[in-house]
Amino acid sequence: MGVKKVSVSPSSELDVSELLRGHAESLAEYFQSFRARFSAAPPRLLNAIEYSLTAGGKRLRPALVFECWKACRLTRSESSASSRSASASAAAIELIHTFSLVHDDLPAMDDDDLRRGRPTNHKVFGEAMAILAGDAMVTLAFEIIATDAEAASVPALVRELAWASGPEGMIGGQVLDIDSENVALKLEQLQRLHSMKTGALLTAACRLGAISAGAGDDALAAVTAYGKHLGLAFQIVDDLLDVTSTPEQLGKATRKDAGKGKNTYPSLLGVEGSRRDADSQLAAALKSVDQFGSQGDVLRALARFVVQRDK
Amino acid sequence: MGVKKVSVSPSSELDVSELLRGHAESLAEYFQSFRARFSAAPPRLLNAIEYSLTAGGKRLRPALVFECWKACRLTRSESSASSRSASASAAAIELIHTFSLVHDDLPAMDDDDLRRGRPTNHKVFGEAMAILAGDAMVTLAFEIIATDAEAASVPALVRELAWASGPEGMIGGQVLDIDSENVALKLEQLQRLHSMKTGALLTAACRLGAISAGAGDDALAAVTAYGKHLGLAFQIVDDLLDVTSTPEQLGKATRKDAGKGKNTYPSLLGVEGSRRDADSQLAAALKSVDQFGSQGDVLRALARFVVQRDK
Repeated sequence: MGVKKVSVSPSSELDVSELLRGHAESLAEYFQSFRARFSAAPPRLLNAIEYSLTAGGKRLRPALVFECWKACRLTRSESSASSRSASASAAAIELIHTFSLVHDDLPAMDDDDLRRGRPTNHKVFGEAMAILAGDAMVTLAFEIIATDAEAASVPALVRELAWASGPEGMIGGQVLDIDSENVALKLEQLQRLHSMKTGALLTAACRLGAISAGAGDDALAAVTAYGKHLGLAFQIVDDLLDVTSTPEQLGKATRKDAGKGKNTYPSLLGVEGSRRDADSQLAAALKSVDQFGSQGDVLRALARFVVQRDK
Repeated sequence: MGVKKVSVSPSSELDVSELLRGHAESLAEYFQSFRARFSAAPPRLLNAIEYSLTAGGKRLRPALVFECWKACRLTRSESSASSRSASASAAAIELIHTFSLVHDDLPAMDDDDLRRGRPTNHKVFGEAMAILAGDAMVTLAFEIIATDAEAASVPALVRELAWASGPEGMIGGQVLDIDSENVALKLEQLQRLHSMKTGALLTAACRLGAISAGAGDDALAAVTAYGKHLGLAFQIVDDLLDVTSTPEQLGKATRKDAGKGKNTYPSLLGVEGSRRDADSQLAAALKSVDQFGSQGDVLRALARFVVQRDK
């Protein structure tokens, strides 16, 4: 990923790629502790988990956890709130995201051979192990929160992550996605599908950060709205990149949506219409965090990055 | 399942089948609330989840949660501890158990067509939906605990359930099981495999009950030892039933262990040797709950039932 300057305000510039790299490094340390921490697990299972967890990716969700935690923490009088809950939440949400990729890539699902520029998990470890490694990432996500987060935050954090991952969130969205292959959806239906499949977890990332900071209702509502608009913008851009990029750029197959009869924003709104929609979701995301003032600068930069990214 | 009288002590008899039916009914009510409770989920996903959750089964794990909760609660001065955490834990552990059956039955895993006398989940709903329904059962298990249990117990309950289900517990055991097909294990290795694959979740059922009751260290240690011995006895009897029963009795294929080159107790110890081992695990389980006196009668009856069952 090339270094990318994202304009935040006329007076300041913020390097979002640098910022994401920083969060990715903290996360990598967290994941590196797994082998010692879960030493009673079969090494082959840990290898399969590690393979997908360390395959790179933008680490956008952990960055959202940390940056929403920071923005909300700064709105509170006691600004020393511990980062334990945010760190655990960031690792947990990346585990859930990675689990969803491993299972989505399975032959019975999207049947993909390439992910983040490498063979998919089941191509390397076999289908049975890919299923079990995905399953294990889910239990690990909850084990980490229950063990590493502040005890008082655990019920809200687990509830949030479980809801966003589950039948009313990401997994439910995946079912809608499969069920709507070769069925023409209306824009409203496509938005519901994506708000569940992609949006729920991106919104949860923001809310986990806010909950970890002990945010009040106003701040929590602000990052929730921010996450929802960002989630829609993210998916529109994802659909656009599938049409306009090469496999070399994305590290995975492209133009696969059309081949599978999937509903996408470009197929409903055209490329130009989709780009306009992404821009209006971006504007709404930016407006959602007005109340944070300059403490929302990084969140604004992240939102612009999501819409302007080219991979 | 026929009514089965299990002798508890010379002076009393306890109908374990009746007791299991009672717990199964409370659990069914809990599960029936899912359709209204998770109404934003795609109905087809809820159908697939419900299909496997309501397929019957002995409901042994929920019964262990409730009965360990009762035994531990009675050892405490405040005997009115709320049952909320126990109910949530019982539903959660049955969700995890059912998820494991749905994924284990997949073509990439054990490739089974029949479970509890009915076609397996993927035979009815397709592989993709069976994978997703299993995934959803895991997130629902944690969502239910985080939402319905007493907040103060949530961290310990989530940690316990996640650990027992994960790479160092059930899922790890499943990996060992796959890896050891057509490999001759020593008894010690087979015991490790089963203590992870089956024992961890049975032990967790006991511990979730104890934690829900706010048990002290002694009571927690007692039900932990009870669960471990019960788990080993359960698996030995499971292996024996695979050799000695018909598919009609068990509601699933039999003699499949040998066909798959799986290591079993009868293959290592013979039928008689396995039966003796099951009996000695039973004796150890009974002894573990000595400290509960007559309040441990139901736990003792459950342990005898596990070893004497014929399906």
